[in-house]
Amino acid sequence: MTYTVKEIAVALGASAFGATDILITRAAEPAMAGPDDLALAMSLKFAESLAEGRARVAMLWEGADWEALGLEAAIIAPRPRFAMAGLTGMLDQGQGYATGIHPTAFVDPEAVLGADVSVGPLAVISKGARIGAGSVIGPQCFIGWNATLGAGAYLREAVSIGARVTIGDRFIAQPGARIGGDGFSFVTAEPSNVESVRKTLGDQGDAKAQDWTRIHSLGSVTIGNDVEIGMGATIDCGTIRDTKIGDGTKLDNQVHMGHNVVIGRNCLICGQVGIAGSATIGNNVVLAGQCGVNDNIFVGDGVIAGGGTKLMSNVPAGRTMLGYPATQMDKQVEGYKALRRLPRLMRDVVELKKAVFNADKDA
Amino acid sequence: MTYTVKEIAVALGASAFGATDILITRAAEPAMAGPDDLALAMSLKFAESLAEGRARVAMLWEGADWEALGLEAAIIAPRPRFAMAGLTGMLDQGQGYATGIHPTAFVDPEAVLGADVSVGPLAVISKGARIGAGSVIGPQCFIGWNATLGAGAYLREAVSIGARVTIGDRFIAQPGARIGGDGFSFVTAEPSNVESVRKTLGDQGDAKAQDWTRIHSLGSVTIGNDVEIGMGATIDCGTIRDTKIGDGTKLDNQVHMGHNVVIGRNCLICGQVGIAGSATIGNNVVLAGQCGVNDNIFVGDGVIAGGGTKLMSNVPAGRTMLGYPATQMDKQVEGYKALRRLPRLMRDVVELKKAVFNADKDA
Amino acid sequence: MTYTVKEIAVALGASAFGATDILITRAAEPAMAGPDDLALAMSLKFAESLAEGRARVAMLWEGADWEALGLEAAIIAPRPRFAMAGLTGMLDQGQGYATGIHPTAFVDPEAVLGADVSVGPLAVISKGARIGAGSVIGPQCFIGWNATLGAGAYLREAVSIGARVTIGDRFIAQPGARIGGDGFSFVTAEPSNVESVRKTLGDQGDAKAQDWTRIHSLGSVTIGNDVEIGMGATIDCGTIRDTKIGDGTKLDNQVHMGHNVVIGRNCLICGQVGIAGSATIGNNVVLAGQCGVNDNIFVGDGVIAGGGTKLMSNVPAGRTMLGYPATQMDKQVEGYKALRRLPRLMRDVVELKKAVFNADKDA
Repeated sequence: MTYTVKEIAVALGASAFGATDILITRAAEPAMAGPDDLALAMSLKFAESLAEGRARVAMLWEGADWEALGLEAAIIAPRPRFAMAGLTGMLDQGQGYATGIHPTAFVDPEAVLGADVSVGPLAVISKGARIGAGSVIGPQCFIGWNATLGAGAYLREAVSIGARVTIGDRFIAQPGARIGGDGFSFVTAEPSNVESVRKTLGDQGDAKAQDWTRIHSLGSVTIGNDVEIGMGATIDCGTIRDTKIGDGTKLDNQVHMGHNVVIGRNCLICGQVGIAGSATIGNNVVLAGQCGVNDNIFVGDGVIAGGGTKLMSNVPAGRTMLGYPATQMDKQVEGYKALRRLPRLMRDVVELKKAVFNADKDA
Repeated sequence: MTYTVKEIAVALGASAFGATDILITRAAEPAMAGPDDLALAMSLKFAESLAEGRARVAMLWEGADWEALGLEAAIIAPRPRFAMAGLTGMLDQGQGYATGIHPTAFVDPEAVLGADVSVGPLAVISKGARIGAGSVIGPQCFIGWNATLGAGAYLREAVSIGARVTIGDRFIAQPGARIGGDGFSFVTAEPSNVESVRKTLGDQGDAKAQDWTRIHSLGSVTIGNDVEIGMGATIDCGTIRDTKIGDGTKLDNQVHMGHNVVIGRNCLICGQVGIAGSATIGNNVVLAGQCGVNDNIFVGDGVIAGGGTKLMSNVPAGRTMLGYPATQMDKQVEGYKALRRLPRLMRDVVELKKAVFNADKDA
Repeated sequence: MTYTVKEIAVALGASAFGATDILITRAAEPAMAGPDDLALAMSLKFAESLAEGRARVAMLWEGADWEALGLEAAIIAPRPRFAMAGLTGMLDQGQGYATGIHPTAFVDPEAVLGADVSVGPLAVISKGARIGAGSVIGPQCFIGWNATLGAGAYLREAVSIGARVTIGDRFIAQPGARIGGDGFSFVTAEPSNVESVRKTLGDQGDAKAQDWTRIHSLGSVTIGNDVEIGMGATIDCGTIRDTKIGDGTKLDNQVHMGHNVVIGRNCLICGQVGIAGSATIGNNVVLAGQCGVNDNIFVGDGVIAGGGTKLMSNVPAGRTMLGYPATQMDKQVEGYKALRRLPRLMRDVVELKKAVFNADKDA
């Protein structure tokens, strides 16, 4: 994978300057760049360390003076962060998985594989599973009974997908992603303490000793096109209908998605977010790392929540949220500030009491 | 798996009305139900969408007028949520795992398998492991050296169980559940900054550069009967004695259980809860999603904690807890309200200061 | 693995007393100790339960009167907690993995294995991978293309390591640890709502419907010597350079490490901690369970953070932190106390208002 500066610029819809026939083999940070690397210096701050490395070519910000930086060539993209997507896609060496069906894989004779599907060593494709054309099933993956994957899937090692899961095209799963466990849904023969707390918020006195009986998940999981699931993320089946993820939504590592959850299109769900059963998330929602979403609530389109936010009740569309319990971000920040002023407020009140009530006494 | 309306009602201990010989193949939400489905409409709200579907039969709440809803038959259960457990158990199609020992599995000749045990493709059963009768060991599972599983276990794909782990009957593990890692226990040759912080709560000034030496886990994990462990959950071994889970307790996805933790009977530990080393949890405890339990503390019987609660110190039996740090739920809610009124309180104090101290000056 | 009392004391640099030729087969808690066990009673509290067991030998605290406790022999170590490391190392029975290359493992002919490397059943070693001498690759592990492990690695079952990952000597990975997923880095063609929120903290009104395009990870992961990674932990690749972990650092179960994160030497990162992309952590840092670290921030050497702490901005070296958002621990505790006094403060202000403003009216 070697490209000329010009080829890269064309692919990115960017402009190339100088010796545009220099060959590029990798991208590098400015200080670590060698003579065949494309240094990434998309702001003045990064450009300053160009001198520490040996780069001849760099990707720069609009308006940068590449010659003054001592470069032989430069690429200038109108939105450098977006150009990074194209550039890293071109230069990605991938995982080096072999093509074809590995002899140690177990593919059930009743599985249906499209054209040019690769299956890695010690992977399992179960009866009735359907894998779309051009898909890569990584080493030690598991595809369950009657599961369906669209075209162009890319599954890294040790991914597992349960029975009857349906997934669209261009699906990406990182190592150890798990789809299609049974939902966490249990019930007691008599009303439980939890049902009672939901009404009273109070202590329950003596604990009742009750057995929990499993409610099985009859639904499965339906996932749209262009979805990506992170390492160790877990997605439960729905109880009656499927748990759902819309087109273009991305889940980071260790995201937990309970039964019946519905997530819309083009959401970003960051690391270790947990979404409890039957919550509904709109489109274009961004939940930062370690957010929590309460069961059975609704989160509107375009909601953005900062790191660690716990959404305890419905959130209208367009809100920016923070905190535990979550409020609008600016109110939460105002609350943090007030809390820091609280010790001084308490001293003020002590002074006031002295002045007002002692004065009374003196009078 | 097809049942008459009558058969289902009998199995659930419920009453059947109307054309009770109609055959049912699946359960469905009212709006999506077809003519051979049992629509689940256990409250008035759900019954309203029956008209959008084509259901002839529904499961309804006590006192519902099934004929007025245009149905040909109905099942009415005294506690519909509990009836869901029986119903979904009857209609669960399962994962379609083949029976018998798959030829690609590796079963050590010194492992002992009970009658009618199934072992999936590419699973590993180690030397000295004992698997109870009727158990299903899913694809790509790993059962360690001298581990013991009781009768009727059901392990989904990619579950791993370490050496010397002991598990009771009817154990269920969801995909990628991990039992029997070494505990996270390290020590420095000289007292560490952490030991010092536990005494002072203050800053430690210069960081000491100390190496951490591992304390190995000599104990393993002991799990009772009727326990279930979620996808990606992880349970550490104990240091000297075993880490323990009592009968009937259920762990959701991505639960973390540290070394020496003891959990009692019939607890529900929801998604992403973390329980630090040597904590002790009583019976019938419910910890909602993303709760945390501090190391070495005690959580009494019947304690219920809301989502995201961090239990930092011992909790007496019967308490309902919320927040970080956790307090009783009603006090926490009162605190949230007070915090929201804080800006107004601050303005009041400013007014008071003006009135009291300026008045003094004027006098 | 049987040792005399004397052999154990010598190995631990401790003193032995009494019948030091008694043979020890295991360690045990005092109340559960049998006659061939070494009871661990390193404080008076534990020594009290010696009478409930049948121990003849115990490990005791400095100054303990072993004869008065009815023992036949005793080991006394100057720092008993540190002696636990040596003792548990001696008595650890391990996982019973067989030595050699298991016939069901798939080792690519172009992989390079050092002397005395063991590879468990159904493990995969990819092309160009290099495994240092004496390493143990557990059952069902995956080692990716051109990955490098140093000498003396110990990988439990189902660990996966992606392409081009580089790891030092004496690496330990618990079951299901995952290294080398692609980073969670996405960009929109036009500036996104998230970029806008970082500037304003405010609501974003109408959600823009934008697609996310992946920024590929061209970097990999570099890990030093003596590092340990817990069950289900996930470590992402860097975007351009490698994500990094320094010598002697230990990660607990379900830790999430985003792309480009750099962690220094001898840190303890406890269960379920999440570290967002491009954060930098110093040396000797301890993050207790469920901590979160914001993206792009810096955490100085020797910082200690209590359970559940969310570090939202840079933390200077040596600080002890707590809370969400994190502050210095003593200030956080002061804040909790103030919050609990808030309802009383509010009543005081009501009284003051009555006294001041009604008094005015009366005057």
